[in-house]
Amino acid sequence: MLQGSQSWTFDNSPVILSTGTAGGPFEAEGNLGRDFDHLFSDIWMSEDSFEKAQTKLMEEAAYASLSKINKKPEDMQFVFAGDLINQITATSFACRSLAIPYIGLFGACSTSMEGLALGSFIVDKGGADYILTGSASHNAAVEKQFRYPTEYGAQKPPTSQWTVTASGAAVVGKTGTGPKVTSATIGKVIDMGLTDPFNMGGAMAPAAADTIEAHCTDLNRDPSYYDYIVTGDLGSVGLPLMKELLQQKGVMVTDDQCIDCGLLIYNEDQNIQAGASGSGCSAAVVYGHLLNRMKDKEINKMLVVATGALLSPLSYQQKESIPCIAHAVSIERGQN
Amino acid sequence: MLQGSQSWTFDNSPVILSTGTAGGPFEAEGNLGRDFDHLFSDIWMSEDSFEKAQTKLMEEAAYASLSKINKKPEDMQFVFAGDLINQITATSFACRSLAIPYIGLFGACSTSMEGLALGSFIVDKGGADYILTGSASHNAAVEKQFRYPTEYGAQKPPTSQWTVTASGAAVVGKTGTGPKVTSATIGKVIDMGLTDPFNMGGAMAPAAADTIEAHCTDLNRDPSYYDYIVTGDLGSVGLPLMKELLQQKGVMVTDDQCIDCGLLIYNEDQNIQAGASGSGCSAAVVYGHLLNRMKDKEINKMLVVATGALLSPLSYQQKESIPCIAHAVSIERGQN
Repeated sequence: MLQGSQSWTFDNSPVILSTGTAGGPFEAEGNLGRDFDHLFSDIWMSEDSFEKAQTKLMEEAAYASLSKINKKPEDMQFVFAGDLINQITATSFACRSLAIPYIGLFGACSTSMEGLALGSFIVDKGGADYILTGSASHNAAVEKQFRYPTEYGAQKPPTSQWTVTASGAAVVGKTGTGPKVTSATIGKVIDMGLTDPFNMGGAMAPAAADTIEAHCTDLNRDPSYYDYIVTGDLGSVGLPLMKELLQQKGVMVTDDQCIDCGLLIYNEDQNIQAGASGSGCSAAVVYGHLLNRMKDKEINKMLVVATGALLSPLSYQQKESIPCIAHAVSIERGQN
Repeated sequence: MLQGSQSWTFDNSPVILSTGTAGGPFEAEGNLGRDFDHLFSDIWMSEDSFEKAQTKLMEEAAYASLSKINKKPEDMQFVFAGDLINQITATSFACRSLAIPYIGLFGACSTSMEGLALGSFIVDKGGADYILTGSASHNAAVEKQFRYPTEYGAQKPPTSQWTVTASGAAVVGKTGTGPKVTSATIGKVIDMGLTDPFNMGGAMAPAAADTIEAHCTDLNRDPSYYDYIVTGDLGSVGLPLMKELLQQKGVMVTDDQCIDCGLLIYNEDQNIQAGASGSGCSAAVVYGHLLNRMKDKEINKMLVVATGALLSPLSYQQKESIPCIAHAVSIERGQN
């Protein structure tokens, strides 16, 4: 039900019954390689285009999440998913093979939590017994579309982020064993006038701060309620900015409490400048690494704040600033 | 709540409290010119790009729907909207000025009913008191992106459809006076292998038929329950195909019962080949003309089946076929 101005609390606490993740060869070498269910050794993934490879990534994560609980696509009532590719074709083609009634989303890198928030609401209120949600991104497909084909070897400035080649999917159900989705806060479009597409973290930080503040106000909750406030993906430029903005708003978070998916996935030697990004990043890190840590009882409660830069190459060329958004979902270990 | 495999029935019958529509000069000359709240006399709409003009169209429809019931953007909890432009920037920029918590959708021309279905579910289950939903398209922005800049004067074959320059928005609330949203059916991706991007109606007809069949099965309802089954947009090629497919499935609809937004909006002299399309088409025709007819008691019950072709120029170049989808929402006049 609605709580405050822009949040939902889930009275029946929908359960994340299962998750699946897939990644590419560069992600295999990163910090979280062992957290992936499937790792492709080749960025083409046996496909003839990078967009088709991204479709394969999404399918792989979806089928991995289903197979762990012995479910088939036809056991799901709806899939809530999207990505960054024009007209979200990579997701739509994955949903063609899944053949599950499909709600297409666009929230750029915030899509992961947009899908989990909506899907959890639908399950919580009896609109589905099971839903599937997730997102994927492919470095070569996304870089080509937003910037340059990676084959050009174009250089990027230190504030830029590296689009991950990864996917994450989750099955949410009414009852069962697993982490519970307890609330969600839907963000507004926040645009502070930043125009540099090589500094997404800086552009998105105010959106993350706005949504976290709204979440705490709506739920009358101190940030200390959460072990972690997990952003995805602000990187090394955006994360400190977000903390500073929260401090200005009087929302007191600690340094250790704030972690960012874009800073977790790769290791220091991978030269990814300000961190990782891409709509598959938070999906893969949350549905892989972080829920694994929750399973190991290292995390009890986390607020995942997925951030999206809603620009396009065309809006940039037309000299628009970068509109940003962040959606937050709280996930708690519960008694299981 | 979930009914059957992929439908929701709304126990509290959310109400369409208000709608707003806007159109361009070509739409003003069409059959439904008088049904628009606002008509722009210039396709640039005083903006310096067609994409910004589309944003203006969306804003105009949104503010028109709000002002009719003396509401402001801040009275809405959420906006469910999207469009066809890459990364749905036209909608995101409109939502930047509206500053309502925003759920971005992508369903191509099915976005109108995707938004109404989701928004109605959220209102029905106490997730919002008021939501805003809608979509827009601009002929010159969409044609440029998917085909050629209109200034080139490229010819199109007779099976092609004309992207409308129009927008439609609706405010849905828990209680009040207005047409009721009584159920929704979420479609699957249906792809029969068609590859011609100049024949969207033919490609989308099977998706419409599939969703209508699912709706009737899920609700155990004969199509005769509805005065009209309104597609958007199959055009003159797709509509007869859909009727034939329904007949093959044993879903008996009558000729008079099936109308198509893409065949209503323009007049015969406007040379728009197989009809109109664009994500603003069904939004404008349903939230303008058809709900005006319901207000006049000429329509009591209609099933609006918005269809989307989920391709991109790139997926076409990569020789993919056209994945399609259709989402259906039933709107009933009720006692008001």
